[in-house]
Amino acid sequence: MLIPEYRDMLAAHKRIQPYIRRTPVRVSEYLNELTGAQLFFKCENFQEPGAFKVRGAANAVFGLDDAQAARGVATHSSGNHASCLSYAAMRRGIPCNVVMPRTAPQAKKDTVRRYGGVITECEPSTSSREETFAKVQAQTGGDFVHPYNDPRVIAGQGTCSKEFMEQTGGLDMVVAPIGGGGMISGTCLTLSTLAPETKVIAAEPEQADDAYRSFKAGHIIADDAPKTIADGLLVPLKDLTWHFVSNHVSEIYTTSDAEIVDAMKLIWKHLRVVMEPSSAVPLATILKNKDAFAGKRVGIIITGGNVDLDKLPWL
Amino acid sequence: MLIPEYRDMLAAHKRIQPYIRRTPVRVSEYLNELTGAQLFFKCENFQEPGAFKVRGAANAVFGLDDAQAARGVATHSSGNHASCLSYAAMRRGIPCNVVMPRTAPQAKKDTVRRYGGVITECEPSTSSREETFAKVQAQTGGDFVHPYNDPRVIAGQGTCSKEFMEQTGGLDMVVAPIGGGGMISGTCLTLSTLAPETKVIAAEPEQADDAYRSFKAGHIIADDAPKTIADGLLVPLKDLTWHFVSNHVSEIYTTSDAEIVDAMKLIWKHLRVVMEPSSAVPLATILKNKDAFAGKRVGIIITGGNVDLDKLPWL
Repeated sequence: MLIPEYRDMLAAHKRIQPYIRRTPVRVSEYLNELTGAQLFFKCENFQEPGAFKVRGAANAVFGLDDAQAARGVATHSSGNHASCLSYAAMRRGIPCNVVMPRTAPQAKKDTVRRYGGVITECEPSTSSREETFAKVQAQTGGDFVHPYNDPRVIAGQGTCSKEFMEQTGGLDMVVAPIGGGGMISGTCLTLSTLAPETKVIAAEPEQADDAYRSFKAGHIIADDAPKTIADGLLVPLKDLTWHFVSNHVSEIYTTSDAEIVDAMKLIWKHLRVVMEPSSAVPLATILKNKDAFAGKRVGIIITGGNVDLDKLPWL
Repeated sequence: MLIPEYRDMLAAHKRIQPYIRRTPVRVSEYLNELTGAQLFFKCENFQEPGAFKVRGAANAVFGLDDAQAARGVATHSSGNHASCLSYAAMRRGIPCNVVMPRTAPQAKKDTVRRYGGVITECEPSTSSREETFAKVQAQTGGDFVHPYNDPRVIAGQGTCSKEFMEQTGGLDMVVAPIGGGGMISGTCLTLSTLAPETKVIAAEPEQADDAYRSFKAGHIIADDAPKTIADGLLVPLKDLTWHFVSNHVSEIYTTSDAEIVDAMKLIWKHLRVVMEPSSAVPLATILKNKDAFAGKRVGIIITGGNVDLDKLPWL
């Protein structure tokens, strides 16, 4: 297991600079009053493809040597990683093959194709996905870029916290949602060196609380098919992300889907940004555990903004 | 008629600095491709009370001498000016009285009250509003801050374009929505001195096209009760805003409500910001008149972000 280091994150930041945005940090006097904390929101939903995942994807894509780049990249994902990897590959002008379940929303498929990604559909099961992916990879020779359990991806995600600390001048805590743990691992990677006094806190949906249970048990627990409105957080931890979570995360909190939707609407109304349910889990966590955050400078990563505007969860 | 000058705008910017945000400028590769122009969106919806109008309101409020400040400010408005003036007054700790039609949306009344504004309700007619406002002003002695036909307000709104030019390094055109003409006048005030080669273009709903018809006729035409989804743009030009529109605006374009809603959804989806229908009129205009904007560096002011999340116009 190759564990990415701080210097890998620094190299990543230099490498991906032309392809990512230094996203703005938003504040709201209203949300500060409501929570009793001083909140800073890093708007990764403002990346061109709408998610922080472009950082890790771009780091993988632009770190390839020319020979490998010519064969392109490949992944399986039905979410933001698929579109972010396609976007990064398009920027480099190399092929990107994506295996997606045929049941994935049409909008997600459209986005991948808009960025030149080639989709191979599979059945919505792990066995079909693995089989299909193996075939695609054998045919294309594309370099496998895992959505989160990849040192290049984690080093890329870590660049977000570096900017966040520069932009805010320091934070007591950073709260990010946890699914597979890519963003949380990148955050741990960066802050454990850059600001070891800043706590890293993970926020997870109650209905997909495998990271919480893993954290308490001391080993990875993976659920079969969790269901939550926070559809970016369904995947389990893997060895590399477990390394960071088990060593550097201070606490994992869980919140209900109803609490997530309430927090999402508050952010839309008062920060006036369009973001997805997964990104609302940190604010839901802070509202549910006010005492743990009161009086603190708390950074929240708004991880993504790809949501179906015709089906908002509060309507 | 006291016409505000460039130095008034500079003084306003200094005065209001602590109470406003230097709002970020957003870009979208997707919207650039779609329009063939290079678009820059200045997100005034990110002001704390959600609209550019806090600039003019804060300039009026913080420009008062102590004696007048003690008596506070007063206005009539059912929209963003009411909440922005209440917000500015709250920041200075002085009274703010607002006359609003009893039919105004509850959410707007709630926002004014949240900022400590005192509402006196009137019937939804001009005569009732004027009568009620005269009474309130006589009782309180509050200084009347008109929503747009006030040199302090126009000088305040002009600070937006100053930041916009600094942030973008120059633009070929700035497009803003036009209702009473406060933002457009401020834009003209600033750019006619700071960047006289930058064209100021106004975008108006077809269904409230009194500014367009005034511009073509060469004198103010006011409609009685226009109806459009762009509910921030219902009011007519007045002498002061007509001065700027007639002297400095290059063109006024109109678009249908359906085009406005389409543009609004595009902005929500690709810029991922929550903004109101009025703020979508510029993009609707550009999409409808692509040839006029193709290849140009075009600034768009996203004027406000106060919208009922339970009643989105495309649903």
